[in-house]
Amino acid sequence: MVPSIDVVGVGNAIVDVISTVPAEFIEHHGLAKGAMTLIDADRATSLYELMPPGIESSGGSAANTAVGIASLGGRAEFLGKVRDDQLGAVFVHDLRAAGVAFDVDPSSDGPPTARCLIQVTPDAERTMNTFLGIAAFLTPNDIDEAVVASAAVTYCEGYLWDAEIAKAAIHRAMDIAHDSDRRVSLTLSDSFCVDRHRHEWLDLLADKVDLVFANEAEICALFETDDFDSAREQIRDVVEVSALTRSARGSVVVSGNDTWVIPASPVDNVVDATGAGDLYASGFLHGFAHGADPERCAGLGGLAAAEIISHIGARPRVSLADLTR
Amino acid sequence: MVPSIDVVGVGNAIVDVISTVPAEFIEHHGLAKGAMTLIDADRATSLYELMPPGIESSGGSAANTAVGIASLGGRAEFLGKVRDDQLGAVFVHDLRAAGVAFDVDPSSDGPPTARCLIQVTPDAERTMNTFLGIAAFLTPNDIDEAVVASAAVTYCEGYLWDAEIAKAAIHRAMDIAHDSDRRVSLTLSDSFCVDRHRHEWLDLLADKVDLVFANEAEICALFETDDFDSAREQIRDVVEVSALTRSARGSVVVSGNDTWVIPASPVDNVVDATGAGDLYASGFLHGFAHGADPERCAGLGGLAAAEIISHIGARPRVSLADLTR
Repeated sequence: MVPSIDVVGVGNAIVDVISTVPAEFIEHHGLAKGAMTLIDADRATSLYELMPPGIESSGGSAANTAVGIASLGGRAEFLGKVRDDQLGAVFVHDLRAAGVAFDVDPSSDGPPTARCLIQVTPDAERTMNTFLGIAAFLTPNDIDEAVVASAAVTYCEGYLWDAEIAKAAIHRAMDIAHDSDRRVSLTLSDSFCVDRHRHEWLDLLADKVDLVFANEAEICALFETDDFDSAREQIRDVVEVSALTRSARGSVVVSGNDTWVIPASPVDNVVDATGAGDLYASGFLHGFAHGADPERCAGLGGLAAAEIISHIGARPRVSLADLTR
Repeated sequence: MVPSIDVVGVGNAIVDVISTVPAEFIEHHGLAKGAMTLIDADRATSLYELMPPGIESSGGSAANTAVGIASLGGRAEFLGKVRDDQLGAVFVHDLRAAGVAFDVDPSSDGPPTARCLIQVTPDAERTMNTFLGIAAFLTPNDIDEAVVASAAVTYCEGYLWDAEIAKAAIHRAMDIAHDSDRRVSLTLSDSFCVDRHRHEWLDLLADKVDLVFANEAEICALFETDDFDSAREQIRDVVEVSALTRSARGSVVVSGNDTWVIPASPVDNVVDATGAGDLYASGFLHGFAHGADPERCAGLGGLAAAEIISHIGARPRVSLADLTR
């Protein structure tokens, strides 16, 4: 059956709270610069108190990717968990208003909707501190079989792996996709996340993943090496297609014996790196779902990433479809 | 006694939900362009569903003004009502993080924290639709006598007048201020708001207000005239100092027989008019609280307004104190 959805994203439903801070803020408060750190409710409260005034904007890695796909003109759906609170309503509104389908029922009990406290430093780097809240309670029952079966690609974020019950949800999504002859994609999300789950992920990648996304730090962490070329060659034998991003150096795609090196799209003024990887995945997946070659996929990824880093926030401000014309 | 606070602002505690929309959006959905319209909970829900993805940013007219005063290096406090919900927590955080004192207890029952659905059109004009929620329940008991008595100026927003019980709160604040030999200021807020309260306000201005802020539409509405010069002459006899803003034409200040005409500060690119009047009031009040002459006050107002209209949102992105140096 022809897929009625291009990509279904499975991930944490998160509202970002974004403040610009001086470089010293990161060091002074012991934050892990450029990484995503999980925090509990108490730390979320105390860290928020330290932050300057912020803006709230819907986020979540796979959700950002789904929005990017819709902005490119693709058909996207998202599976993730919010509560029936104000931030949950904001998350759902922003997703649907961006043209992404979303039908998971908001939870009427449990912890609040997830939030990510993001500090953007003058070097445009973002440091993320995530209180997962209800997002960690995505269960296999929340994975709509009909949705996954009708999507050309099921795309899961590695961040989800930090919640035990969400792991089972990912496994179920991947199994449904393959049973329906669809493709499965995973992003490694964060190098610290890779450190936490290396062995499980090597098995998962070999058994169930057709397309993997990783940046340089993540792919090196996966193979415990400092040498990108070595990591690139090792992932080649594990996954059918690997899209490896290298910030300003663009991306490298490997598949079988083939290798493509794609330069980054030019950006006048890099303001906020938040969402760069998510939007690269949007472009790549949009091409991939429509059978484009890896070079075209990576080019679309680079274009979408360039738009997102030119402003604050992880959702596109202009139509990416217009941008690619 | 020397005042320990420069300005205490009394107003609606509101979180803004800001989306950029095409010009047609305003007409198509029957919105009152450039004005502030009060909406109920149902309309807030249905209008929000129509809006594109947005960002959330703390707002509220007098609260924005208080933040501007803190950014100028002044001592500001805010009196207004939030609920103990997520948007309430965002509002309080952003205010305190900006250096504004705030000590009104969040309400543990009643409607949710106020939100203002703002549509920004390509001409940089903002159209505001406010669901007042708990903000309408600011009572005379929420007016801390010691705070008002220790502030050089008590500044009230006209918007508050739309809630019957908040009127009593304003009267109490103004009376405490005068009983403590402090100054009282009012902004007319919105021309439709003026239409709703014209006669009460003419009495209030004559009896209790030392410094009034109004834009051209508001001061003309007050005196039911199309002629700005006529309105300017009429207000001269009612209030000791009147600061009248005219967008790109700058502002006019009248006091007794004196008139000052102050050009607008230059702005490269006007992005979003939200908060222009609020920040003009910040600059003016900061000068006024420190005994500056009207020309200096209006100049500071113009500078602060120029910063706020150069970006999305109604809170300054840079230190206004640095800007004035």
